[in-house]
Amino acid sequence: MTKQLDSIFGAMADPTRRAVIERLASGPATVSDLHAPHAMALPTFMRHLAVLENAGIVRSVKRGRVRTCQIETGPLVEVQGWLAWQREIWETRSAPTPQL
Amino acid sequence: MTKQLDSIFGAMADPTRRAVIERLASGPATVSDLHAPHAMALPTFMRHLAVLENAGIVRSVKRGRVRTCQIETGPLVEVQGWLAWQREIWETRSAPTPQL
Repeated sequence: MTKQLDSIFGAMADPTRRAVIERLASGPATVSDLHAPHAMALPTFMRHLAVLENAGIVRSVKRGRVRTCQIETGPLVEVQGWLAWQREIWETRSAPTPQL
Repeated sequence: MTKQLDSIFGAMADPTRRAVIERLASGPATVSDLHAPHAMALPTFMRHLAVLENAGIVRSVKRGRVRTCQIETGPLVEVQGWLAWQREIWETRSAPTPQL
């Protein structure tokens, strides 16, 4: 769980990888389509995809010569949960003392 | 904004730094108190604090010989916003087509 949060947060700490997440939130896409808007060599881009796959945020399947990626929402929901938990703690603390 | 998200996500990609965030969510603490539960040299711990300060997640003030840290909730709220935005996109997409 700790290791998992490390790799999920680490995967999101890069603009190219966040752009891929943003794109895949709208639906599955091929690697070529995902790569198209990014001015970088394909192998470099593939390394970013691998970071997302290792973090469990992206899953891909290859049919013939085409690899299609899709988002896995579980890790993002987990991160949302962690953040919501922190927020609940500080909001409870800073809430005015209830009147008795 | 992009640079900012990079450094916020990067700061959260480490268990020591998340533990500091969790502790500070409950209220301000001195560096010694924050360091106490962590089995690492103080200079190493201070580098983790510096990463959190550079990401804008932690602010600290020194009074005499005591440095006190507190959480800055803005960056965490920003990250929550980004995640909520992604989630809205994929939930809208996967929602069943409304009956006409």
